[in-house]
Amino acid sequence: AARAMAAWARAVRGLLLDVSGVLYDSGGDGGVPIAGSVEAVRRIKASGLKLRFCTNETQATREKFVKKLQGLGFDISVAEVTAPAPAACRILKERSLRPHLLVHNDLVPEFSEIDKTNPNCVVIGDAAENFTYANLNEAFRVLIGMEKPVLISLGRGRYYKETDGLKLDVGAYMKALEYACDVQAEVVGKPSKMFFESALAEMGVPPEQAIMIGDDIESDVGGAQRCGMRALQVRTGKYRPCDENHPHVKPDAYVNNLAEAVDIILQQL
Amino acid sequence: AARAMAAWARAVRGLLLDVSGVLYDSGGDGGVPIAGSVEAVRRIKASGLKLRFCTNETQATREKFVKKLQGLGFDISVAEVTAPAPAACRILKERSLRPHLLVHNDLVPEFSEIDKTNPNCVVIGDAAENFTYANLNEAFRVLIGMEKPVLISLGRGRYYKETDGLKLDVGAYMKALEYACDVQAEVVGKPSKMFFESALAEMGVPPEQAIMIGDDIESDVGGAQRCGMRALQVRTGKYRPCDENHPHVKPDAYVNNLAEAVDIILQQL
Repeated sequence: AARAMAAWARAVRGLLLDVSGVLYDSGGDGGVPIAGSVEAVRRIKASGLKLRFCTNETQATREKFVKKLQGLGFDISVAEVTAPAPAACRILKERSLRPHLLVHNDLVPEFSEIDKTNPNCVVIGDAAENFTYANLNEAFRVLIGMEKPVLISLGRGRYYKETDGLKLDVGAYMKALEYACDVQAEVVGKPSKMFFESALAEMGVPPEQAIMIGDDIESDVGGAQRCGMRALQVRTGKYRPCDENHPHVKPDAYVNNLAEAVDIILQQL
Repeated sequence: AARAMAAWARAVRGLLLDVSGVLYDSGGDGGVPIAGSVEAVRRIKASGLKLRFCTNETQATREKFVKKLQGLGFDISVAEVTAPAPAACRILKERSLRPHLLVHNDLVPEFSEIDKTNPNCVVIGDAAENFTYANLNEAFRVLIGMEKPVLISLGRGRYYKETDGLKLDVGAYMKALEYACDVQAEVVGKPSKMFFESALAEMGVPPEQAIMIGDDIESDVGGAQRCGMRALQVRTGKYRPCDENHPHVKPDAYVNNLAEAVDIILQQL
């Protein structure tokens, strides 16, 4: 990996880090940091590189999410996080959309400013335990009742890893509603190009000087590369060996974990 | 409708009837017969036409399902019903597949003869209340743990109508698992060609002398037409006016309900 990266890692001025599966493994117990990641974030900050956390996390408000990560030892603040819910709120306001929400209870406060009466769209996030049969039927009925159904999905991930095993992500439920209503969801969050571009703009770094580091071959690596960034896949989180034979996406390099990525990148500076 | 059908309805020797949405509207309370349908089934039987009930119903064993319909007044027996679960059992035995079942509790007895230890495939049916977040994650983990995931789906319906409203059907959950595992399900039941062909064989009527009557524009009408049958869509059950503008499927005629279809067909004989 080091040799492959040497040529281009020198130009890097900013890093985008996925969070779940890169910094920590999430779980009902709050999750556990991935070995070396707490120290790796500190080293990035000390190096002078720009840094932005780019997550599809929608199980909590950014405030709560950041507090959890701080509790695990990470040097992270709300202002450093790019997440789908605030991006969705901008879209809802721009287009006068009133959402029916199928999201995690802890995400609801992100939509406190949004009119939710008489819904004219459905917003779906990783609702986890809220993905009940009754709630899915309800969201479906709202959608199928519209003349032109509008479905906004906070990410399109297939699955993710928690401490007690793999879990279906929002993308799977998005597909269920897309199929039932014969509609195509608008995806906010990774791998949407607009989402990566806003993270880059917030960091003030052009794509060719940025590296995305993630565990999701499609949402993280594929999405970032389509924006003109380099992208590394870590062999932590939801990484599976068969990702290395992905039919369409090839990371610019593989690293065992975030700590190794930071080692290699900082050596080039 | 009568004029459109006059030309070809004379050749008919057998009818295939969908059940839910044609004979009755299902629901937690057992459901209610659709006006005129009890009498319509009696008239078909009295006419000498061959008759077969062709259902994707997987919320109960055929025995229990038939008993419910008898309770609503229908002249129907188990031997007259073509349903997905027995067809799936034949496939499982032929290919030595051991299923993990994600189905309705009341369907489980249909699989009593099947070895379910150490699963090497997943069978999904309309599990209804069993479509919990935990059960979907479990089925997903079984699939994603296989070198070559095998997913067998009892139907691919988008949704159906119960007395208390529209419900997501098995097809939506099938799509969720297909997407999460990057696999294509094998569909047993309508609109699979093999399923219609076995119903025709059981009736002893060739497709060009059979008419399918259903409320599902894709599973009933589209599937039967691809087998060389004529197909009518009833304006009961899950029928929606926009079905009449379906981009790919055009029924051979529309009828308001089963009673009207039987009126017209019997007039031609």
